[in-house]
Amino acid sequence: MKTVDTLILGGTILCLDESMTLIEDGALAIKGDTIAALGRANEFRQKFTSQNILDGTNSLIMPGLINSHTHAAMTCFRGIADDMHLMEWLTKYIFPAEARNVDPELAYWGSLLACAEMIRSGTTMFCNMYIFEAETAQAARKAGMRCLLGEVLFDFPSPNVKTPKEGLAYTRKLLDTWSGDPLIRIAVEPHSLYTCSRPLLVEAGKLAEEYQVPLALHLLETRSEKEQLREKLGQEAVPYLDELGLLNERLIAFHCVCLDDEEIRLFSEKGCKVVYNPESNMKLASGFAPVSRMIREGVCVGLGTDGCASNNSLDMFQEMDTAAKLEKVRHLDPTLMPAETVVAMATRQGARVLGMEEITGVLKEGKKADLILIDLNRPHLTPMYNPYSHLVYAVNGSDVKTVFISGKMVMKDRNLLTLDEEEIMQRVCRIAERIRDSLKEPS
Amino acid sequence: MKTVDTLILGGTILCLDESMTLIEDGALAIKGDTIAALGRANEFRQKFTSQNILDGTNSLIMPGLINSHTHAAMTCFRGIADDMHLMEWLTKYIFPAEARNVDPELAYWGSLLACAEMIRSGTTMFCNMYIFEAETAQAARKAGMRCLLGEVLFDFPSPNVKTPKEGLAYTRKLLDTWSGDPLIRIAVEPHSLYTCSRPLLVEAGKLAEEYQVPLALHLLETRSEKEQLREKLGQEAVPYLDELGLLNERLIAFHCVCLDDEEIRLFSEKGCKVVYNPESNMKLASGFAPVSRMIREGVCVGLGTDGCASNNSLDMFQEMDTAAKLEKVRHLDPTLMPAETVVAMATRQGARVLGMEEITGVLKEGKKADLILIDLNRPHLTPMYNPYSHLVYAVNGSDVKTVFISGKMVMKDRNLLTLDEEEIMQRVCRIAERIRDSLKEPS
Ligand SMILES: [Zn+2]
Ligand SMILES: [Zn+2]
Repeated sequence: MKTVDTLILGGTILCLDESMTLIEDGALAIKGDTIAALGRANEFRQKFTSQNILDGTNSLIMPGLINSHTHAAMTCFRGIADDMHLMEWLTKYIFPAEARNVDPELAYWGSLLACAEMIRSGTTMFCNMYIFEAETAQAARKAGMRCLLGEVLFDFPSPNVKTPKEGLAYTRKLLDTWSGDPLIRIAVEPHSLYTCSRPLLVEAGKLAEEYQVPLALHLLETRSEKEQLREKLGQEAVPYLDELGLLNERLIAFHCVCLDDEEIRLFSEKGCKVVYNPESNMKLASGFAPVSRMIREGVCVGLGTDGCASNNSLDMFQEMDTAAKLEKVRHLDPTLMPAETVVAMATRQGARVLGMEEITGVLKEGKKADLILIDLNRPHLTPMYNPYSHLVYAVNGSDVKTVFISGKMVMKDRNLLTLDEEEIMQRVCRIAERIRDSLKEPS
Repeated sequence: MKTVDTLILGGTILCLDESMTLIEDGALAIKGDTIAALGRANEFRQKFTSQNILDGTNSLIMPGLINSHTHAAMTCFRGIADDMHLMEWLTKYIFPAEARNVDPELAYWGSLLACAEMIRSGTTMFCNMYIFEAETAQAARKAGMRCLLGEVLFDFPSPNVKTPKEGLAYTRKLLDTWSGDPLIRIAVEPHSLYTCSRPLLVEAGKLAEEYQVPLALHLLETRSEKEQLREKLGQEAVPYLDELGLLNERLIAFHCVCLDDEEIRLFSEKGCKVVYNPESNMKLASGFAPVSRMIREGVCVGLGTDGCASNNSLDMFQEMDTAAKLEKVRHLDPTLMPAETVVAMATRQGARVLGMEEITGVLKEGKKADLILIDLNRPHLTPMYNPYSHLVYAVNGSDVKTVFISGKMVMKDRNLLTLDEEEIMQRVCRIAERIRDSLKEPS
């Protein structure tokens, strides 16, 4: 008998590896931060013992979900303004609310709230872009969540940094501070091509190159952005990125609603990564990203919720449901974006997008133990003919029972173990009072 | 001090009446099956007393949701087949599975499971079409749910009736049996124009006229149905309905994806009702219904999930989220389908669609007490700037805490009070075994 730290016995294990291995009456052993073994419950009962044995019966056991694009601290602005034109939304609500309120306190508590919400809905890793990212890093560490994050870089001042140069220096400091951390990784994150000048993009690219980390940015989210960029740059956006030397395997592009066929081909050829954000694209009326075409052309596509001001939820199960359905109706073809493809986007492919495929995204011996248990004993999940169909079309975040990240249990039977959610909600409610007041002031 | 049966003190009350009355720190008194009074908690503490006082603090209190189109017993087929072309889906899976398995047992237990799922996600009334509807009526009565239902009528035999004539006789029997029931009402429900001949539609119309009840049918769900009907009828579908004398205030048409401008005008003029089913329309790749145009033209539009084989969930909160977002991206206009409009579709307008506006759909003195409490003390519902935004874009069915139907508490703190859900799930799992086996048989 081998002793392990945690032993899960029973349940259906979905490995989400390339061959979509499914183990009925499965078992999984965790040692330290790592998956030590995967197999059948009846064998593991003879082979392993543990102080911490979990009953997986009537559960789905799968890799934790990966939210490949969000702005965690924007939970503080959840639902502050909806159902209006993008420019009105940004200039009357989001920009003034951010300019007047974003500070380290908001960044920290807003990020903690996002972590609580994400863990509760089965997300074990997220990719973040926002202001005061040192705070988000602390929040993720406190929550025990895996995270790839970077300070947002613009040409203009942010509440954190006065100049692009300061932003780059802040990013370099993050890179040095968190180097080698088991959970937190840093990316270089210029906001977009319409808010970053050529010199800033070039410097950002050099920094990402120097540290060999991802460079992440918003790209071609709307038709009007595409037209504006064409005017400003005198060329299409993706060839421009190529000219700057940024089209490589470390590029992560969020949204990509208006990528044309030639740009998709270039992305595929150069190994660039894309994050699909269907709920945000719908709510902001940005458009339909060519997601099944990108996948068909070999582009690696992950899935993200975007921030809470434009969704307004971080539940990746709802995002999967929408990802599966939107493409079908858009092309009047129900065979597009089948459930297995969508679940892979939220797990294995998400890990590839974030450069973490060695570490997470599938259940396999030797990978970090980032995994979730979903309770199937619920009316809305009865009966079950196909687990992938259930994950996409029937499960919601509240069905997640237990969550492990890097071998550590962070939620057990719906109780968060790393966070005091009552305190977090109270702190964010107080911050929201201040935000509400600030919007009453004349601008 | 006046004694009432139930007193809810505290919380934000959303009445969902025409003027969208919102009461902060509200109070609501129930006597028998009726809302006796609505007001402020501090006043009601002096005016009313009750054996059953509920704390509404930190909750939203609103009318129960109305699922205006579903096929309840199809919970038994949830996820049996997805991501395939409609004809393959119907002829290889749904039709054989139904032909071999639908019987009174499946209809009863499948409907009970649907009731459990619907109550758990805040739905207090549903409009149903399926086979063996006497069983669904019994299930709804057992659950304590409000329901408008009718036996599906076709030209061909169903597992329940051999001929259209038998179907009409079965419907007449339902009408007589349930006449005057406080919860259950009966409609006449020919399946669609492509499965019902002219004589059947005429007879159905006469029966609905005789009993003064709604006539409900699927209408123009896909482009190919529209083309097929044009060929078969030699005219457009809605003028054909007009010719049959069916275009009146009692007509309820499900889907209406391909209603053209003239047909919308006719619907508006004649007071016909429409049920919008965006999730099903997406998943089956049926198309985009002209929902905001219908509403603008004055058509009364409710919201429904459709059955569990084509959604695969009965959660009306997710349906609202999708209803709000889909129209925005389709027309690239984020101002379409604002949250308030969508919440009204799922409550007040749903009641109008089903001919129940005198009874339910809004919180108002004298209406039946069909209402739900939503728990706001959750990370993903923090902070709250706008309750309607929350209901549509952030709440999901699992946030519903307590449910009243016709004055009776049917769920308290997430515990179902009328149903034994463990037994229901077991029974449906057994039925699903039989369904699984039946699909292995050669056809
Ligand atoms: Zn974003
Ligand atoms: Zn239907």
